[in-house]
Amino acid sequence: MIVVMKGGTTPEQVQEIAGRLEEMGYQVNPIFGVERTVVGAVGGSEHMKIDAIDQLRSYDYVEDVILITKPYKFVAKESRGAKSAIDIDGIKIGGDQVVMMAGPCTVESEEQLFSTAERVAKAGATILRGGAYKPSTSPYSFQGMGLEGLKLLKEAGKRYNLKVVTEVMHVRKVEEVAEYADILQIGTRNMQNYDLLREVGQSRVPAMLKRGMTAKLEEWLLAAEYIASGGNDRIILCERGIRTFEPYTRNTLDLSAVPALHSLTHLPVVVDPSQGTGRRDLVAAMSKAAVAVGADGLIIEVHPNPDHAIKDGAQSITIEAFEKLMPELQAIASAVGRSF
Amino acid sequence: MIVVMKGGTTPEQVQEIAGRLEEMGYQVNPIFGVERTVVGAVGGSEHMKIDAIDQLRSYDYVEDVILITKPYKFVAKESRGAKSAIDIDGIKIGGDQVVMMAGPCTVESEEQLFSTAERVAKAGATILRGGAYKPSTSPYSFQGMGLEGLKLLKEAGKRYNLKVVTEVMHVRKVEEVAEYADILQIGTRNMQNYDLLREVGQSRVPAMLKRGMTAKLEEWLLAAEYIASGGNDRIILCERGIRTFEPYTRNTLDLSAVPALHSLTHLPVVVDPSQGTGRRDLVAAMSKAAVAVGADGLIIEVHPNPDHAIKDGAQSITIEAFEKLMPELQAIASAVGRSF
Amino acid sequence: MIVVMKGGTTPEQVQEIAGRLEEMGYQVNPIFGVERTVVGAVGGSEHMKIDAIDQLRSYDYVEDVILITKPYKFVAKESRGAKSAIDIDGIKIGGDQVVMMAGPCTVESEEQLFSTAERVAKAGATILRGGAYKPSTSPYSFQGMGLEGLKLLKEAGKRYNLKVVTEVMHVRKVEEVAEYADILQIGTRNMQNYDLLREVGQSRVPAMLKRGMTAKLEEWLLAAEYIASGGNDRIILCERGIRTFEPYTRNTLDLSAVPALHSLTHLPVVVDPSQGTGRRDLVAAMSKAAVAVGADGLIIEVHPNPDHAIKDGAQSITIEAFEKLMPELQAIASAVGRSF
Amino acid sequence: MIVVMKGGTTPEQVQEIAGRLEEMGYQVNPIFGVERTVVGAVGGSEHMKIDAIDQLRSYDYVEDVILITKPYKFVAKESRGAKSAIDIDGIKIGGDQVVMMAGPCTVESEEQLFSTAERVAKAGATILRGGAYKPSTSPYSFQGMGLEGLKLLKEAGKRYNLKVVTEVMHVRKVEEVAEYADILQIGTRNMQNYDLLREVGQSRVPAMLKRGMTAKLEEWLLAAEYIASGGNDRIILCERGIRTFEPYTRNTLDLSAVPALHSLTHLPVVVDPSQGTGRRDLVAAMSKAAVAVGADGLIIEVHPNPDHAIKDGAQSITIEAFEKLMPELQAIASAVGRSF
Repeated sequence: MIVVMKGGTTPEQVQEIAGRLEEMGYQVNPIFGVERTVVGAVGGSEHMKIDAIDQLRSYDYVEDVILITKPYKFVAKESRGAKSAIDIDGIKIGGDQVVMMAGPCTVESEEQLFSTAERVAKAGATILRGGAYKPSTSPYSFQGMGLEGLKLLKEAGKRYNLKVVTEVMHVRKVEEVAEYADILQIGTRNMQNYDLLREVGQSRVPAMLKRGMTAKLEEWLLAAEYIASGGNDRIILCERGIRTFEPYTRNTLDLSAVPALHSLTHLPVVVDPSQGTGRRDLVAAMSKAAVAVGADGLIIEVHPNPDHAIKDGAQSITIEAFEKLMPELQAIASAVGRSF
Repeated sequence: MIVVMKGGTTPEQVQEIAGRLEEMGYQVNPIFGVERTVVGAVGGSEHMKIDAIDQLRSYDYVEDVILITKPYKFVAKESRGAKSAIDIDGIKIGGDQVVMMAGPCTVESEEQLFSTAERVAKAGATILRGGAYKPSTSPYSFQGMGLEGLKLLKEAGKRYNLKVVTEVMHVRKVEEVAEYADILQIGTRNMQNYDLLREVGQSRVPAMLKRGMTAKLEEWLLAAEYIASGGNDRIILCERGIRTFEPYTRNTLDLSAVPALHSLTHLPVVVDPSQGTGRRDLVAAMSKAAVAVGADGLIIEVHPNPDHAIKDGAQSITIEAFEKLMPELQAIASAVGRSF
Repeated sequence: MIVVMKGGTTPEQVQEIAGRLEEMGYQVNPIFGVERTVVGAVGGSEHMKIDAIDQLRSYDYVEDVILITKPYKFVAKESRGAKSAIDIDGIKIGGDQVVMMAGPCTVESEEQLFSTAERVAKAGATILRGGAYKPSTSPYSFQGMGLEGLKLLKEAGKRYNLKVVTEVMHVRKVEEVAEYADILQIGTRNMQNYDLLREVGQSRVPAMLKRGMTAKLEEWLLAAEYIASGGNDRIILCERGIRTFEPYTRNTLDLSAVPALHSLTHLPVVVDPSQGTGRRDLVAAMSKAAVAVGADGLIIEVHPNPDHAIKDGAQSITIEAFEKLMPELQAIASAVGRSF
Repeated sequence: MIVVMKGGTTPEQVQEIAGRLEEMGYQVNPIFGVERTVVGAVGGSEHMKIDAIDQLRSYDYVEDVILITKPYKFVAKESRGAKSAIDIDGIKIGGDQVVMMAGPCTVESEEQLFSTAERVAKAGATILRGGAYKPSTSPYSFQGMGLEGLKLLKEAGKRYNLKVVTEVMHVRKVEEVAEYADILQIGTRNMQNYDLLREVGQSRVPAMLKRGMTAKLEEWLLAAEYIASGGNDRIILCERGIRTFEPYTRNTLDLSAVPALHSLTHLPVVVDPSQGTGRRDLVAAMSKAAVAVGADGLIIEVHPNPDHAIKDGAQSITIEAFEKLMPELQAIASAVGRSF
């Protein structure tokens, strides 16, 4: 940790800071310069660093405090050395294969879900996505089929040999969703819902943590650390676009997050080009880019009849479009030494 | 609602859209232009509009769908005509008086809380703030004193004749917090935690809803609508800064939100210059600006010894600074025809 | 154009707006609804639309004005139907081949430039990049070698059979730069320097217009329209990252802009992964993604010894890294039906 | 300057960095920690710091480089100690008085300009604003009356005893504009047009530098440093809103920039609530807030008939609204110890 003192700081003030740092368990090394003094601190416990920064910043004569080690531990690349592959009953996310998750934004009916599941499975998807509990900006929007939707998902998964990923929004429903799903998705609006993160941290079911629409990489990894520190270390990160000033797309899909995360964490990273663009006509191109950039998987919204989807039809592609896309993605995957 | 068709749309396609709109209960009026056709739709139920937009956007030949009425109802200005004043046991938020909420970021000890409460009350604050359950970006940060903190808050409030506002983060603790607090604060990270919003919507205790750090005004009002539609219409909005590219301040305090909200909603609006800037040296100036712009209240972090605060000391002002600030704010309040 | 009137508008007010629109040459069609009236306007001259919006928005009883046709003409996809390929003396940008532009951020010396040029040419680059006039955030930074740098670029280009792209910053130096360069680059800070855009619009040399770091796609295309309307229609767009809240990367490279632009404009689009990330370790992955997403070219900063580069060494890759990258990109290009 | 080395750096690598720093004239002090090494460097010339950061960041084994002194000099608060007041022929910007600049967005006619000038002068404005050369996002928008507009401005100024501020966009017209204006405005799109900044830096006429719509405070001050280092130290900064995700306002007016700048620089700061919000109905409230927060002046768009303004009518207030606003602002000014 580096504490930068303001210009004109007295030796007593530097001493005060050095004292605080020593109390916190750091070894302290002040550098007195002509214009300015900085205090370097090494050692100290992982667990206190974030609070320490906060406390040192409080001093009027401290200009800035800079953390030089990462504030997360379990999810840091260093903790494993290599990339982790999450094994979902034989399907490995984070291994050599790129994993395809596909299905409707929202479970609407048996007919809609099963027809989609059958064909995406045939086309090469191994995981079925579908919303049973839906977060909606408006209280008047459709909130999902709930438990009935979960049951349909599980049944469709069984019939077509697909694993199931679906969102969990309610702390009190984590167990219920875990009964029917193979992966618990935490949505963008709940990325810093710490209550939910801790609850999922105690589940035995793997979690897929979507990036908050305004989350920095570090905040995202700290949210994952909440889950991991609770005991559930089977976490998949999902880049789904960030909020920017550009109105053409619903979000700006930040593909540079994929290689960046691969150097910061051992967790696998998948990409959601549907939410990430909000536009059906951009999904194919961004899917190809995501495979090329090194994503461990994709999650794509597919609907048998997007024009009549209850939600997010504008970003859903048709089943036919999905079938056409899969071999194109396989070509890219081969080009980067992976397969589907 | 206006549905803008893409160039080259056929009359059949326009007919298809018109048919969907009529099914939804709209009266339809297409305008055929030389280059392009637009379909105007009036009427229709408030409750379906957001989903309808989503569904119409799904059509490949639809360029855009534009909502021309607001998607919220209970919190809309029109639903009351005039501004609402929320009465907290005699203290009116949204009336002629500007209400001052002050206290430490985090409840740390009886000594710290009571000494602060006593003096902010004497200086003119009527509501005590203080965190008992603290949301923290890192799982390793201090998470608050919990129930013990709530008890201290209630006791301090009683002793110094202050109402209490404190954050509630856990769906399963809404009742517990409501027992000790006069206002339930929902923090920026939970603005779209719909589970929590619904739970607070069923409480008899007023809510203070902070703006999500990346929330548009409309999304914020829809979050308030979640609470209101649950039956709890005593809602205070709190502007606390939005996330931008500027690193100098922790957030960018968007003061234009105050007059904007006053024209969109009847709910009172308070301003948090501590979170909104993250810098102690900017709190006084931004507090003055907030009163001048028409805020119904301020919420300020005050600490007897900010250099030793557990959290957010950098944005906390001293008790002395608070005492000095109050008369300055009163002068501004007078200048805009209000008082403290 | 759609003019949305506020609630409670009188028929006289609607008439006033309709009159203004008719004066402007529009055919007018008002839709009177129960809650609200909208006025549809079709026809009207391309050239006045932006000002018309501005003027109609001024009315107190107008809620919003929505443009339903694009405000640009020469650069719009519709103006050509197909994609344009810009022919730079035999090298086609926007055709089947993906074009590689490579070279140092800044021309530092003959030795540095020529050694780089020789090897990037051998590895498959066809265009040499290099800054002679450098825009710098600080007046105390190195501002480039100027004319001497231009001369070196031209000579290196001639010797290694590379075309040359370099930035022009000064209105009074457009002719000078045009004498030495095959493509005039307009940098991100000058995207809305209309004086410069008009000057380049009168040049016979093709232009490469980088996206403003905060420019919406529409604003970018309008900037291109400035150049095109001056007579120079050989314009290449270059996505180079936008400014967001994420501090990990210098900019957020918006790859979705590539397919989006391909549907909005006939102009070719290249991608700059060096500026777009600011991090050498992300350049290879983002280059692959850019080819996969459909970019017509890449522009990459390559330096024989990045650790000793005068500028932007952190985002420059070594010549060896570039040589290793080229065949990897070729594999992706093949997978999407293109070549280098 | 602090150079943070990556984990696992060898002593030789630290030595290499230390050597580079010493070459640059710094005194070097490495701190070897258990996990990581940091190298502190003090001294060194102001003028090289920005480039030095760039060069040190290039090393693969350097994690980050942190500048601990400000990269600007002439405009830094320290260079004067106290705030500067710019004297425009007897009107002081940056002194005790808050200065009001008012007038139409665009000069449209003698009638429009003179009627506005007369009444804003009577109401207390001392500086007349008005655009003669207008930057427009579209090449098809009105570009201003040019020289004729400048002449009208000068005449109106003389007749009503107002100084004149107007925008200069063209490097080759700085002299022309300087002949007619008392303050040369540099617009938001040109904040990093270094060619123009240098040209204005050689003028004897004071400059008003608007904040780039995406400029950090530091970048803005470095742009001012371009002007100051050219010899023109009479610079006024103008906060005019930044670009964020919020669509309700045209820009987000960042009032915290005012006190922040007052602690970073000696230059006076004025606020533009018209551009800053883009909405007439927010101008009065934000003007009051700007005075309360400590602005040295305001620049407001006033039009005799905003509904018929050629440009930006939506953000222009009427003359009557301006007359009503002035005494309200005076009341706030008194409350903060200033006057108009």
